[in-house]
Amino acid sequence: MRIIIDAMGGDNAPSAVVDGAFRAATDFNVAVSLVGDESKIAAYIKEKGYSNDKVSIVHASEVIAMDDNPIDVIKNKKDSSMVVAMNMLSIGEGDALVSAGNTGALVTGSTLIVKRIRNVRRAALGTLMPTKDAFMLLLDVGANSDCTPQFLHQFAVMGSVYMNKLYRLDAPKVGLVNIGTEDEKGSDVAVATNKLLKKTDLNYIGNIEARDIPAGVADVVVCDGFTGNIILKLTEGLAHVLFGKIRAVFKSNIFTKLAALLVKRKFMEFKKSMDYTEYGGAPLLGLRKPVIKAHGSSDANAFYHAIRQAVNYTKSGIIEEIATKVAADKEESADA
Amino acid sequence: MRIIIDAMGGDNAPSAVVDGAFRAATDFNVAVSLVGDESKIAAYIKEKGYSNDKVSIVHASEVIAMDDNPIDVIKNKKDSSMVVAMNMLSIGEGDALVSAGNTGALVTGSTLIVKRIRNVRRAALGTLMPTKDAFMLLLDVGANSDCTPQFLHQFAVMGSVYMNKLYRLDAPKVGLVNIGTEDEKGSDVAVATNKLLKKTDLNYIGNIEARDIPAGVADVVVCDGFTGNIILKLTEGLAHVLFGKIRAVFKSNIFTKLAALLVKRKFMEFKKSMDYTEYGGAPLLGLRKPVIKAHGSSDANAFYHAIRQAVNYTKSGIIEEIATKVAADKEESADA
Repeated sequence: MRIIIDAMGGDNAPSAVVDGAFRAATDFNVAVSLVGDESKIAAYIKEKGYSNDKVSIVHASEVIAMDDNPIDVIKNKKDSSMVVAMNMLSIGEGDALVSAGNTGALVTGSTLIVKRIRNVRRAALGTLMPTKDAFMLLLDVGANSDCTPQFLHQFAVMGSVYMNKLYRLDAPKVGLVNIGTEDEKGSDVAVATNKLLKKTDLNYIGNIEARDIPAGVADVVVCDGFTGNIILKLTEGLAHVLFGKIRAVFKSNIFTKLAALLVKRKFMEFKKSMDYTEYGGAPLLGLRKPVIKAHGSSDANAFYHAIRQAVNYTKSGIIEEIATKVAADKEESADA
Repeated sequence: MRIIIDAMGGDNAPSAVVDGAFRAATDFNVAVSLVGDESKIAAYIKEKGYSNDKVSIVHASEVIAMDDNPIDVIKNKKDSSMVVAMNMLSIGEGDALVSAGNTGALVTGSTLIVKRIRNVRRAALGTLMPTKDAFMLLLDVGANSDCTPQFLHQFAVMGSVYMNKLYRLDAPKVGLVNIGTEDEKGSDVAVATNKLLKKTDLNYIGNIEARDIPAGVADVVVCDGFTGNIILKLTEGLAHVLFGKIRAVFKSNIFTKLAALLVKRKFMEFKKSMDYTEYGGAPLLGLRKPVIKAHGSSDANAFYHAIRQAVNYTKSGIIEEIATKVAADKEESADA
């Protein structure tokens, strides 16, 4: 197995990418192609004294910036690390791709270059997020702002397959994000989607309110990319503000400062358990090959976990299973 | 001034409503009409020994349940406390209405019975929510799941007037909830709304990401009711899970238990500052008279604050100002 890595993507590229890649290549015994500025990558490898036959460099002269327009760069930055990596994946010079670069470019480029599984209407970006006692897959988190009930149905199918194959959940509970649990609640799209999902053989638990998402009522939380992005980003923002406020509470006076010392270790453990970047990268689902979006601020450890996730995604049979299921759904709706 | 109160709405009715109403009638020197089951209300008043000439009871034989279908009950439960209260407000037997009952019924009923200000396309439900160092008005939070750019523009206008008149913010900063700050980002509606808001004389700061909402980047945060409800409910759910987890951290061992004692008072203060139910009720904006939706779980203190808010809303001139602004906008777009 060979994992292709966009070595220039993310805030800490290429150093954190290279660190994570060497560790992963050894631990998971996989070949790794580091795509990017050869001289920079080679210099860093030399500096660190890394050596592993399984790691190779593929030169790419350009880099996609975080604020580049996705469609423009896919067309025009043909020799960017991300586009070169996607082309390699597409022609079989590797089995999976990991990138921490521009999300829009990765989604757009993957759809154009790696291409969708037959019958899949839209690729979806999923993110594992911590819940009260476990974690769940939220999708879509930004690949598709406007969704039809048919897109959302496929997201539910793809998310269920992912959680089943990768985390061995027998019948992942699927919930649809809505503003009430009753059937008539919500936007026109939500009402129609709920109706559609009820007819499937998914383990569909119905509409779920945003209040219940952090409690972990569902394993697969389905919504359009606009709503998913709001959920993901608000969670980030709220956690940031709350932890900042808690830090201020502990700094209030001498007693609270003492309290901080006593509770520090347990508190850090808890904070870490709530950090979704610890859960690896965000899988793009619905493509012909595994693509993992690592968080833009990924450190070496996050890249290591994202590569592990790419390895597992490749081995899992997720893509074949999605292909089978969406084809069956298509036949069924043609029969109806 | 007379405030009409739906004495049967909410989880703690009528006792908490009556407690809050008597306190408010005295402190704010306003007349209060308690609408609901006369015998129950009178018995509770007698039990508590309350006496105030400014408080009167208006009998209503029915109660709207939390899960009643809004349109059905407005049509069929004509003698429910909420419908009687809305009719009183409509014909001038009071200046403002407070209810902790069924949100959908209150929104639908207010639109049908109290009616919208001329030229206002949709009434919006707003909620004050705490931010890092202050608070902001989020609207809509559930009255309108599907919104056009024109509705959202009016929400921005109404929210700005509310924050200006009630909290003396000179030029409230208005942000549009979106999944990126760039102009081309987001759903079709979000793109069109951003374009529209840029042309107004509002203090429009542009698209804002959900991540930045808790930090307090805007005073008025505009979105459709679906998105607003997600933001409100997810904030509730996350706070609940996080505070539960923190409680567990403090119970870990003897050291953390000691820490809990040392930090308890400061921590409770912080928790209270983050509780949006402390900020009074949710105003319905765009109606001809002030209507305040109190939280379903409101206690006497929450009702007291919701009544204060109704008094201020009535005195503020908000409704006249909204009427003037939306009429001016209408003329302008007719000119264009």
